[in-house]
Amino acid sequence: MEKIILGVDPGTNVMGYGILRVVGNKAELMTMGVIELHKYESHYLRLGKIFERITGIIDSFHPDEMAIEAPFFGKNVQSMLKLGRAQGVAITAAIMRDIPITEYEPRKIKVAITGNGAAAKEQVAGMLQRILHIPAEEMQVQFDATDALGAAYCHFVQMGKPQVDKHYGSWKDFIAKNADKVHQ
Amino acid sequence: MEKIILGVDPGTNVMGYGILRVVGNKAELMTMGVIELHKYESHYLRLGKIFERITGIIDSFHPDEMAIEAPFFGKNVQSMLKLGRAQGVAITAAIMRDIPITEYEPRKIKVAITGNGAAAKEQVAGMLQRILHIPAEEMQVQFDATDALGAAYCHFVQMGKPQVDKHYGSWKDFIAKNADKVHQ
Repeated sequence: MEKIILGVDPGTNVMGYGILRVVGNKAELMTMGVIELHKYESHYLRLGKIFERITGIIDSFHPDEMAIEAPFFGKNVQSMLKLGRAQGVAITAAIMRDIPITEYEPRKIKVAITGNGAAAKEQVAGMLQRILHIPAEEMQVQFDATDALGAAYCHFVQMGKPQVDKHYGSWKDFIAKNADKVHQ
Repeated sequence: MEKIILGVDPGTNVMGYGILRVVGNKAELMTMGVIELHKYESHYLRLGKIFERITGIIDSFHPDEMAIEAPFFGKNVQSMLKLGRAQGVAITAAIMRDIPITEYEPRKIKVAITGNGAAAKEQVAGMLQRILHIPAEEMQVQFDATDALGAAYCHFVQMGKPQVDKHYGSWKDFIAKNADKVHQ
């Protein structure tokens, strides 16, 4: 089983992305970076650039799934509207390429990586570097990139967990789909 | 001078659109309608449909400009995030076709059409029907459509107004661009 996961941390100033290649139960870094949007004065131009760049990343790396860092609560309605616009654009880019999307709250991503939902961004970045054996010269100093990679890693961790949720009709159904995960 | 204005009222349940053809200083209805999104259970699928349908409308009617009804304040951060996503998608569809976008607050649209910022949606619809001489059988019963048409009409009204704003370098610049609007 090989799977490529694109992690995205949407924002209208900087958008981060991180891509993981998962082979079996191992994940490795393919690439990570940021899309700088500061330089575009127009809010509209920024949204257009997000769409173009995410589409470009998808067409270059052919991810099978996309994970988004998506805060569900914010300081105020203004900032949430802006964030929603950026998220909407990134999501649409994935949908247009038929890529399934999963959203993770920042707290959940932090727990998946550091075990602590209140971990600092530095800790998340440091843990990712260690877990994924990322050479210092490949590490991104911008947290938008490591946060995005964190979303991808969180998705990788979630993928491996047996989940009894509404997608499974029954425990029998679950066992059928997860024979390798169940001790019988 | 002929110009086509696409008005959009973005939402994740129903998205309204209305298209005006402006010839000289007269505006007439080309079409209006709604994109029903209820039927798609997935929030993601809804965003994808908004993108596809808005792109389809743009490619069918070739609007020169897009006007969006955009509330800047909402009940709570959750609803603003959702609204922001829908807006972001509609905006991106326009940007991808190089169509300039202008946003109007609901209150401003109501003032432009009825003279009253607190007008009911029924009043806005009724005034639009009268101003644009829309036959009863062409009127849309859904306010999402008439609200969208209202955004297009508001933009038409604004277009005709001389504006001294940051887009003009100076009053001289303004006069040069608006010779017909200035009594010299």
